[in-house]
Amino acid sequence: MRMVDLILKKRAGGAHTPEEIRFLVDGFVQGDVKDYQMSAWMMAVCFNGMTAAETGELTRAMWHSGEVVDLSDLPGVKLDKHSTGGVGDTTTLVIAPLVAACGGTVAKMSGRGLGHTGGTIDKLEAIPGVNIAQPIEDFKRIVRQTGLCVTGQTGDLVPADKLMYALRDVTGTVQSIPLIASSIMSKKLAAGTDAIVLDVKVGSGAFMQAVEEARELAQTMVQIGEHVGRKTVAILTDMNQPLGCAVGNALEVREAVQMLRGEIPEGDPLYKVCMLLATNMLLLGGVAHTQAVAEALLNRALYDGAGLKKLREMLVALGAQENCLENIDALCTVRRQVPVTLGRAGFVGGMQAEAIGQAAQMLGAGRAKKTDAIDPAVGLVMHKRQGDYVLKDEPVATLYVNDEARLEEAMQALKGAIRLESEQPAPAPLVYDVVRAAQER
Amino acid sequence: MRMVDLILKKRAGGAHTPEEIRFLVDGFVQGDVKDYQMSAWMMAVCFNGMTAAETGELTRAMWHSGEVVDLSDLPGVKLDKHSTGGVGDTTTLVIAPLVAACGGTVAKMSGRGLGHTGGTIDKLEAIPGVNIAQPIEDFKRIVRQTGLCVTGQTGDLVPADKLMYALRDVTGTVQSIPLIASSIMSKKLAAGTDAIVLDVKVGSGAFMQAVEEARELAQTMVQIGEHVGRKTVAILTDMNQPLGCAVGNALEVREAVQMLRGEIPEGDPLYKVCMLLATNMLLLGGVAHTQAVAEALLNRALYDGAGLKKLREMLVALGAQENCLENIDALCTVRRQVPVTLGRAGFVGGMQAEAIGQAAQMLGAGRAKKTDAIDPAVGLVMHKRQGDYVLKDEPVATLYVNDEARLEEAMQALKGAIRLESEQPAPAPLVYDVVRAAQER
Repeated sequence: MRMVDLILKKRAGGAHTPEEIRFLVDGFVQGDVKDYQMSAWMMAVCFNGMTAAETGELTRAMWHSGEVVDLSDLPGVKLDKHSTGGVGDTTTLVIAPLVAACGGTVAKMSGRGLGHTGGTIDKLEAIPGVNIAQPIEDFKRIVRQTGLCVTGQTGDLVPADKLMYALRDVTGTVQSIPLIASSIMSKKLAAGTDAIVLDVKVGSGAFMQAVEEARELAQTMVQIGEHVGRKTVAILTDMNQPLGCAVGNALEVREAVQMLRGEIPEGDPLYKVCMLLATNMLLLGGVAHTQAVAEALLNRALYDGAGLKKLREMLVALGAQENCLENIDALCTVRRQVPVTLGRAGFVGGMQAEAIGQAAQMLGAGRAKKTDAIDPAVGLVMHKRQGDYVLKDEPVATLYVNDEARLEEAMQALKGAIRLESEQPAPAPLVYDVVRAAQER
Repeated sequence: MRMVDLILKKRAGGAHTPEEIRFLVDGFVQGDVKDYQMSAWMMAVCFNGMTAAETGELTRAMWHSGEVVDLSDLPGVKLDKHSTGGVGDTTTLVIAPLVAACGGTVAKMSGRGLGHTGGTIDKLEAIPGVNIAQPIEDFKRIVRQTGLCVTGQTGDLVPADKLMYALRDVTGTVQSIPLIASSIMSKKLAAGTDAIVLDVKVGSGAFMQAVEEARELAQTMVQIGEHVGRKTVAILTDMNQPLGCAVGNALEVREAVQMLRGEIPEGDPLYKVCMLLATNMLLLGGVAHTQAVAEALLNRALYDGAGLKKLREMLVALGAQENCLENIDALCTVRRQVPVTLGRAGFVGGMQAEAIGQAAQMLGAGRAKKTDAIDPAVGLVMHKRQGDYVLKDEPVATLYVNDEARLEEAMQALKGAIRLESEQPAPAPLVYDVVRAAQER
């Protein structure tokens, strides 16, 4: 088998056999398939796509390209949840404890934030003492003891993805549904999960800005799950405004704790998305067999404090103090809080969620490149949501600032991200679709 | 400017500015643009093509990527002729002397054969004493003294093409009209030519098997000539059978000499294509102002021996003996001549010219890879052409054999390359089209 023939086949619109897919992934990791061949092949994939079977086999080959976490000795269905990346999206810190409190088993390896999107690992590290670099045996021990663990990725999982992503980043081949889907799913599978709930974000703050494209990504990932025998559900949720009000690491931990304390109203987008994702995790995990039961279990865990207790248990297991959640406000202490006003009145018609994420990044809450340091305390809190009325001098947000170097730039970015209208806009949808495997529909 | 942005632009179907084209070609030669980026960009070009202006600028950037031959101190319009590669195509050895004998100036750097196609340089080297590796000053001196010189490429011309072609070869991006056209034209331009006649071969023995594709390549190359201000004409000629009867290096030299001696009839395809190409060279060179005058000049140079004399002058200048053309048969002396019969009768309906070229290559006349040695004496001579009747035991060809290792394989390849039919087929076209620049039409 020669790589050039596989490139020609994909260029001509052909479908690869499983052997061909393994040849090119294994060959690439071993260095026999050259990076200039892989980039040409990936560009051909960008134009000609891949069949569901090809994408499934690509995922399988990537999944097995390095270490694989074996969670089979842990009891129950190991559940994972993945978001394609959004702004003010602190769902993992809410859902993982809630699902564990209901009897689910949540074993999740999470990532850091990059660009305008936040990462769960950065949020966990905002809590003093937390060590997200847990050896795999400690990760499993924490899952066994508490029913959940969220850490950074351990071991050399999916080297094929690391190599392919680095190449895609510099060769204009990032935007490709089969390549995106196999990248996400191979990492989830290598982390040993049995069932996955995917939160595919759509809108101005998301990687996918159009619903149709997001639906195609969701369907492709669910098909991969079917192909490799892992239950998968994908939910398309809105990212045209930050999901929660907080954007920043300690600020988002605080909002997650507020949610787990029952302080966030049921009508809030963060509440709704958390409950929908958690419901589907309980259903996939076999903890609940109907949506109504799942919702009842989750409501109890929310209002009796069991979810909050689970979060604390996990944080303590990761190295935090027992009282780590008692004075979260202290973690959000900054030199200045700067209210942002728009100087005119009107209804909030639309937001550029990406620009809001970037504003927080400018203040030090996120990274422009992987090696940048972040400040856990800084960020911003939105006071208004789509459809809300804003008075002329009413703050739409508050910036949490330590380093003022880019304060003005962040302020302008935030102001430019909010469009005011004279009429109240129609409510924007929050959930666009739920995509399930064929046998689950 | 970032290469990844240029890849994304081409992927999206955009057209590059001249600055962008220079950035990517110069950057690639200097190593700033990585090979994995270049291969991804070239694959995007395979899918989305390039405009005439982009292809012209690509050619210009490649042309100037290394040394450039300056022929401006030589008198007259320096003429070049290029074939896209065929079987039994010895036109250069006929045309270059004929055009020079008529007063044209032919300065041509030629290539070696690879695969089933022959190369003029290999044919020249079949003549004892000929040294095709001439320093540029000697090349120019020979042109000045004799009116023509055909040598191998000297100096480090068009390094961008060498690098790009090596990459295309292993990344499935060889077949792309703008990349093929810019590769050919940049080399012609760097060799210092003023005007170019292109022989674009079409058919079973050619790189382009369909007339429409060959016409697109021809038009693209003529547009490049227009873009950079070099007169260019492209002629689409048939390569569904070998052009001449001889396939092999000394054998093709012998056929060229027969042609220059007036021994090849006017109706012969080799005769017709040579006269058409040479006529266009005289017109482009301003030596003749009408086709009738050009043809009259060429006929005289053919029948008074002036063309043959020019060929001898050039060969002697390249190192051959004065009597080098007097006993060409000696160069074609082999251990065995093996007639090939088909064992059945019928009209020759069609040939696989590529397979005939491969049969000669198996006998040692050509190379499978660049480092292979060739035997100048071996090859084959066809006795039949399309439309001819073959008796049951009548030889269709004679193989000229020294090494018998692959004789049987070559015999089978040749037999399989000839299709017999019970009815005489309609005559196949020899010239499909002549493509001229807009201002010449």
